[in-house]
Amino acid sequence: MTPIVSIVGWSGSGKTVLLEKLIPEMVRRGYRVATAKHHPHDFDIDYEGKDTWRHRQAGAACTIISSQKRLAMIRDMDHDASLNELRDRFITDVDIIIAEGFKSEPVPKIEVFRKIMDVEPLCASMSGIIAVVTDAPLDPGVPVLGLDDISRIADLIVKKFLA
Amino acid sequence: MTPIVSIVGWSGSGKTVLLEKLIPEMVRRGYRVATAKHHPHDFDIDYEGKDTWRHRQAGAACTIISSQKRLAMIRDMDHDASLNELRDRFITDVDIIIAEGFKSEPVPKIEVFRKIMDVEPLCASMSGIIAVVTDAPLDPGVPVLGLDDISRIADLIVKKFLA
Repeated sequence: MTPIVSIVGWSGSGKTVLLEKLIPEMVRRGYRVATAKHHPHDFDIDYEGKDTWRHRQAGAACTIISSQKRLAMIRDMDHDASLNELRDRFITDVDIIIAEGFKSEPVPKIEVFRKIMDVEPLCASMSGIIAVVTDAPLDPGVPVLGLDDISRIADLIVKKFLA
Repeated sequence: MTPIVSIVGWSGSGKTVLLEKLIPEMVRRGYRVATAKHHPHDFDIDYEGKDTWRHRQAGAACTIISSQKRLAMIRDMDHDASLNELRDRFITDVDIIIAEGFKSEPVPKIEVFRKIMDVEPLCASMSGIIAVVTDAPLDPGVPVLGLDDISRIADLIVKKFLA
């Protein structure tokens, strides 16, 4: 079963920035990474090959465009899928799923927290946080790593989920 | 097993235009339709929520963005997936898959042919064509329907695959 870990943190804490550094480090180590993000509202998607967009506009519940290198799918949903559901229904061929957000889900989480933000870190009140990536002097009772300690963050993920 | 039918025809014959009329007619009749299209080259996809695009750029092999209403996935492939593979791995919850193109695949096909095109219709040499949608006076040995006979085309699809 593909392990799931989610990067959580207040809006603006730098979750995507962390992922942008962490993914290449994991890839460099030979792991195949999937990512998942929840969108709070409706969103639109635009294909360069516009025919699929026309299929959707015409009412297709699911549209796929595929090439030798890449596949894109867009489909209707009638509920917010959990990370487990995303894994079980849609994600194959990867070693780990690193989600962004999904903070209410019962999966292991790594918090990103920057001291410039005038808020309490999530780890003060949220369960399931296995590490905090921060520039603040926190003592959350789980490993604390620096915002640029990408190698150590990857080490922790490998040790916890991929060893 | 979800039935598959593919709309085939020379480039410019109006496959997408036909799908744009056919999909709403199928939806109006209560069917859930998936569509699939093959892309001959690489293609790019752009999310309005750009974070997922950043995940891909960073090296994620698969990225999903999901909301309550919609899910989009983009993933790496290492081969051209067949329609059966697309169905088995990625497409759920629909009554029928109407593909566009994939003319070398062993699935039932409906050809779109317009007499203005100075070519032979595919049905002259291709097997698996179950109907021809055309404005030309063809006698292909399978049902011939007009380019705007959307209701009759839907009837044929329902009778053949969904009855």
